[in-house]
Amino acid sequence: MFRQLIRWVLGEKLANSQLKEQNYNVFWGMPILSSDAISSVAYAVEEMLWILVPVIGMASYLWMPRVATAIILLLVVLVFSYRQTVEAYPNGGGAYIVAKENLKTVYGLIAGAALSVDYTLTVAVSICAGTAAITSAFPGLYPHRVAISVGIIVLMVIGNLRGVRESSRIFSIPTYAFIAAIIALIVAGLLKHFSGSYVDVPNPSLSHVSFGTGAITVFLLLRAFSSGCSAVTGVEAISNAVPNFAPPSQKNARTAYLMLAAAVSITFGGVAYLAKIYHAVPNPKMTVIAQITLDVFGKGFMFYFIQATTMIILAMAANTAFAGFPTLLSVIAQDGYAPRQLALRGHRLNYSNGIIFLAAMAIILVLVFRGDTHLLIPLYAVGVFTSFTLSQTGMLVHWLRLKPEGWHYKAFINGLGAFITLVTVIIIGVTKFQSGAWIVIVVIPLFVLLMLKVKNHYVSVAEQLDLPNDTLSQISFEPSYTHYVIVPIDSLNVMVVRALRYAKSMSPNVEAFHVETREGEADKLRAKWAMLNTDIPLIIKQSPYREVVGPLIEYIDSEEHASKPGDVITVLLPQFLVSKWWQMMLHNNTSIFIANALFHKRNVVVSVLPFYLEDISLWRKKQMLQSRARTLTGDAQG
Amino acid sequence: MFRQLIRWVLGEKLANSQLKEQNYNVFWGMPILSSDAISSVAYAVEEMLWILVPVIGMASYLWMPRVATAIILLLVVLVFSYRQTVEAYPNGGGAYIVAKENLKTVYGLIAGAALSVDYTLTVAVSICAGTAAITSAFPGLYPHRVAISVGIIVLMVIGNLRGVRESSRIFSIPTYAFIAAIIALIVAGLLKHFSGSYVDVPNPSLSHVSFGTGAITVFLLLRAFSSGCSAVTGVEAISNAVPNFAPPSQKNARTAYLMLAAAVSITFGGVAYLAKIYHAVPNPKMTVIAQITLDVFGKGFMFYFIQATTMIILAMAANTAFAGFPTLLSVIAQDGYAPRQLALRGHRLNYSNGIIFLAAMAIILVLVFRGDTHLLIPLYAVGVFTSFTLSQTGMLVHWLRLKPEGWHYKAFINGLGAFITLVTVIIIGVTKFQSGAWIVIVVIPLFVLLMLKVKNHYVSVAEQLDLPNDTLSQISFEPSYTHYVIVPIDSLNVMVVRALRYAKSMSPNVEAFHVETREGEADKLRAKWAMLNTDIPLIIKQSPYREVVGPLIEYIDSEEHASKPGDVITVLLPQFLVSKWWQMMLHNNTSIFIANALFHKRNVVVSVLPFYLEDISLWRKKQMLQSRARTLTGDAQG
Repeated sequence: MFRQLIRWVLGEKLANSQLKEQNYNVFWGMPILSSDAISSVAYAVEEMLWILVPVIGMASYLWMPRVATAIILLLVVLVFSYRQTVEAYPNGGGAYIVAKENLKTVYGLIAGAALSVDYTLTVAVSICAGTAAITSAFPGLYPHRVAISVGIIVLMVIGNLRGVRESSRIFSIPTYAFIAAIIALIVAGLLKHFSGSYVDVPNPSLSHVSFGTGAITVFLLLRAFSSGCSAVTGVEAISNAVPNFAPPSQKNARTAYLMLAAAVSITFGGVAYLAKIYHAVPNPKMTVIAQITLDVFGKGFMFYFIQATTMIILAMAANTAFAGFPTLLSVIAQDGYAPRQLALRGHRLNYSNGIIFLAAMAIILVLVFRGDTHLLIPLYAVGVFTSFTLSQTGMLVHWLRLKPEGWHYKAFINGLGAFITLVTVIIIGVTKFQSGAWIVIVVIPLFVLLMLKVKNHYVSVAEQLDLPNDTLSQISFEPSYTHYVIVPIDSLNVMVVRALRYAKSMSPNVEAFHVETREGEADKLRAKWAMLNTDIPLIIKQSPYREVVGPLIEYIDSEEHASKPGDVITVLLPQFLVSKWWQMMLHNNTSIFIANALFHKRNVVVSVLPFYLEDISLWRKKQMLQSRARTLTGDAQG
Repeated sequence: MFRQLIRWVLGEKLANSQLKEQNYNVFWGMPILSSDAISSVAYAVEEMLWILVPVIGMASYLWMPRVATAIILLLVVLVFSYRQTVEAYPNGGGAYIVAKENLKTVYGLIAGAALSVDYTLTVAVSICAGTAAITSAFPGLYPHRVAISVGIIVLMVIGNLRGVRESSRIFSIPTYAFIAAIIALIVAGLLKHFSGSYVDVPNPSLSHVSFGTGAITVFLLLRAFSSGCSAVTGVEAISNAVPNFAPPSQKNARTAYLMLAAAVSITFGGVAYLAKIYHAVPNPKMTVIAQITLDVFGKGFMFYFIQATTMIILAMAANTAFAGFPTLLSVIAQDGYAPRQLALRGHRLNYSNGIIFLAAMAIILVLVFRGDTHLLIPLYAVGVFTSFTLSQTGMLVHWLRLKPEGWHYKAFINGLGAFITLVTVIIIGVTKFQSGAWIVIVVIPLFVLLMLKVKNHYVSVAEQLDLPNDTLSQISFEPSYTHYVIVPIDSLNVMVVRALRYAKSMSPNVEAFHVETREGEADKLRAKWAMLNTDIPLIIKQSPYREVVGPLIEYIDSEEHASKPGDVITVLLPQFLVSKWWQMMLHNNTSIFIANALFHKRNVVVSVLPFYLEDISLWRKKQMLQSRARTLTGDAQG
C-alpha cells in the first residue's frame, strides 16, 4: 500500500533508456537558466533599503541608486567573465569543476561547499520572498507565511521527485512575463512621476521602520552593497548548463549571457530608481515592489499580476536549485567526496536523495529564520561570491596555463572578475559577519572537512578491497580453512532437524549447542538425543544467569572447540517465521538476540535459517493431505 | 553505558540458585497478605457515601451503616469459603487454578482474565487513594495528584524489578500500624461523640457535594452496596499464597483468615459508624477518614500519622498486585495461554515483563481517569467478584466430585459463597454498568479470546514441530537435496573473493551473480572475471530499472537455474562492517535490502557474511607489516 502511494505521488518508474537531455534555443533557454538571477530583483532593492533607511532616513534615496549602479557594474564584469567560462568549458563549467581542474582539489571542494550552501539559501530566500509577494497581495495570509513557505517547498520536492523538467518549456513564460511586468511598471512609474500626476503622501500605517538621521559611513554603504549583491546571485547558472542549449550551444550560451545582463540591469536599475522617486519604505507586511505597484497602478489587475509573476519566478529560481544541487552532489559523490548513494539515480531517474536533503535543509532555514527574507540575506551572498572567486581564479589560471590566442585579454577579464568578487566576499564577510555570515564561514570549512573524511574512508576501503589485475590469476577460491557449523538449539523438533540437515549440507563439522538454564532442564533433551541415529555431537553448557550468548562465545573460544585460528565458524540459527505480526511476540526470538550479539565477533559468521510456520487452518489442511513421514527423510522446506 | 545504568538501577543479576521462597509465621504473614483487603477500608466507606449523599442527603447516615453490615456479612461468608480453599489447595489455590481444575479450562481463563483486570485496578485504585491521603494532609499537592500517582507507580516498578521481597518483613509493620491507628480513631471518636464534647458543625467550605432529597430506592442501595464491595477485594490473597506460611502452613493460613476477617470487620465497621455519627461528606480534596480524624484529633500528630499509614498500606496493597499479577501471568503462560516470555524470570529472578506490563496498564488508567479513585471504583469490583464466583463454584464442584468426610457442610459453605458472590457480580454489573463496569465486561471476554488464540497458535506450532520419540531413530540428517550458493556481487574485490571462498566451503555449487544497471557497465567485471582461475560461473542480468532483487528472484525461479524443486539455495551476501556508525551511511548497504526482500522467499536461505573494514590508521599500519600475498591464498578473515 505504501509502495502504491509512492507510485501514485511520484509516477511510474523510469528505465535508464528514458534518460535524455532536452535542448533549448536561446529564446527558451535563457529564461529557464536566468530565473534565479532575474528573480533576485524582487528583493535586492528592498534589502538595500532595509540597511539604509533605519540609519540615514531620506538620504537613502540619494545613496541607494549609487550602490545599485556599483552592483550593475559588478554584474557586467561577471557576465563577461562567465562568457569566457562558457568558451572554455563547452560541457558546463561549474565552480567545483573549474576550481578543481585549474587550482587544487581542495579549492574545488571549497567551491563545492560554498555552492551547496548557496543552493540551500537560494531555495529558502526565494521561497520566503515569493511568500512575501503572496502576503503583500493577501495580507490575511501574513500570519501563515512560515506554513506557506514550507508547503511550497514540499510541493517542489514532490514535483522534482516526479521530474519537473519533463514539461519545462512552459517555465520560460513566467520569466518573460515578470520582465515585461517590471518594465511596464518602470515605464508607467516614470510617466506618472514626471507627468506630476503622483503626489508622494507617505502612508504611515504602512511603515514599520523609523527613519534614521545617522551619519553616512563607508561601512554602511558597504553593508547596503552586500545586501544588494543578492541581485547578482544565479549568474553562474548558464555556464553550468552549456549543453542544455541547442547547437551551436556555446554561442547560444554566450548570447544568453548578454540577454541576462540586459534583463537584470534594466529591471534592477529601474526598480531601484522607482524606489528612489516613490520613496518606498521597507515593511515586513508589504514588499517594496508591491508598494511601488500600488502607487503606480492602484490595487487593480496589474497589482495582482505583478505579485503573481513575482511569486512564480521566485518559485522557478528555487527550482533551479532543485536541479543544480543534486547534480552537483552527484558529481562530488562520483569523485568520492560525498556518500556514493548521492550519485545514484532514483525511481524517476533523478537524484532523489539530493532533492530530499536540499528540501530538508531549506525547511530548517525557513523555520529557524521564521520565513523572513531579510534575516536570511546576510547568509546568502557569502557562499555565492566565494564560488565566483574560486571559479574566476580557476579561469585565470586556465588561461595562464594554456595561453591560447588572445590569452592576455581573457586572463585580464577573468582576473578582474576574480579580483572584484574576492573584494566583494571580503566586504560581505566583514559587514555581515555578525548578522549571519559567520554561520556560512563556519559551515563551509566543516563541509570541506567532512568531504575530505569521506574521501579518506573511500580510499581506505578501496585499498583494502583492491585486487590488482596481475594477481587475479593466482587467487585460490578453495578455502584452506576448516568450516565448522554450530547450531544453537532449545529442544529437539522438526525445525532443529531441518537446521541440522542444512548445516550438514554446508560442512561435515556440525555440532548442536544447548544452554541449560535450570539444573536438570537438559536431561530430557539429552535422552532424546541419545535416541537419534546421528554422529552430530550435542554440546550442553550451564548458564546460571539464563544467558545464551556468553556460554556460546566461551565455548567457541575455548580449547575444547576443535577449530584452529583462521578457521571459520558459522553459527546457524533456526528462526520461526510466522504469518501474522502479533504471532512474532509469542516467541522468544532468541535467535535475533544471538545474531545481534555475535555480529561483531570476527571469524564467526551468523546465518539465520527461517522456518516457515503455517497458518493454523492452512496447516491442518496440509496435515491431512500429507504424511508426516517426509520429515524423517531429507527434504528441504516441506 | 545503558547496561551499566540498568545494572545500577536494578542491582546485580541473580543466579537461579538464589531463588528461594521466604516463609512467614501467622504474625508476619497475615499483614503482608492482607494489606490489599485491609487497605480497602481507606476508601470503601467514602465510596458508599459518594453514591448516597448526593441523592438522599442526611438519610445516608441511616442507610450507609446497614449496607456496610451487609458487606461485613458477605466478608464473613467469603472468609469461611476461602478457608476451605486453603484446606484443599495446600500449594495455593488461585481462582485460575481452582476454576481450571474443577470446571472447564475456559472458566479458568475467565477467572484469569478477571484477576488480571482486578490486579491492574488494585494498583490504580490503591495508588490514587493513597495519593488522596497525601493530598488530604497537604492540600497544596492536590493539583499534582496525577503526577504523584504516576511517580509512585514508577518507583514501585523499579522496586519490584530489583525484587522488593528481599526485605519484606518490615512490610508487616505498617499494616499493624494502620489497624492500630484506625482502632484508636474509632475508640477516640466514640468516646468524644458519646461524651458529648463534640458538636457537629458542618463545614460548608469542605463540602463539594450538594445534599440530595431524593427517594430511597432499592437500586440506590444496591449501587451503594456495589461501591462498598471494594472493601472485600483482596480476600483471595491468602489462599493464593499458602506455601508462604511456615509449616503447618495450611493451619497458619486458616488462622490468618480469621485475623483478616476480624481486622476488616472492626476497621470497616468502625469507620462506617464514625462516618455516620460525624456526618462525613465526600469531598475530592479531603478523604472521609481525614475528615473524621480532623474532627476527632484535630490537625495534630494523629492526623498526619493516620494519613501516612493509610498511604503506606495502600502502596503495599498495590505492591501485592506487582507480586501477584506477574506470577498469575507466568502460570497462564506456562499453560500456553499467554506469550511464553511472561514465564521467564528476568535479570533479578522476577517476571520483569509482567511487572512492566502491569505498571503500564495502571498508569494508563490513572491518566484516563485523572487519578480519581471514585471514577475507578465502578470498574473495580466486577473483576474481583467474577473470580470469587468462579473460584467458589470450582470449590463446590471439587467437594461434590471428591466427596471427602464432611463434604455436605463444605459444599454448602462454598456453594453459599458462590451464590452470594454471583448475586454480587450481577448487582455490580447492573448498577455500575453505565459508570464503567461495561469496560470490564467488554475487556474480560476479549482477554479470554486473546488467550485462546495464543493457545491455538502454540498448539499449531507444537504440532508442526513435534517429533514423536518412536520416529527419532529413523531421522536422516544427511540432506537429500542439492545445496546451491549464489553470491550477488557488485565488483571483483577482496571481500568478494572471501565470500566466494566461504561459499565454496559450504557447497561445490557456487555462482556469482551481478546485475547490470547501465548498458556496458558489467564489461569491466566480465573482463576481470575472465582472468580468474576458477570454475565459478558469473551470471550477469540486465536491470533497466536499477533494481537488484527482482532479477535475482527471477533467475532463481527460472529454468536457467540448475536447482530442482526441493533444493535449497543460499544467497550469500557480503557486507561491509565499518568501525564508525557514520561510515555505514557511506555505503549503499544493498545487502541489507536484498536480505530483507528475500527473507520471505521459501527455499532460499539468506546469509550475511560480514567483512570487517579496518579503521584507516590501523589499516595503514597493518598494511606495512603484512604482505598482501595472503589474500591470494585461502585464509579466513585476515
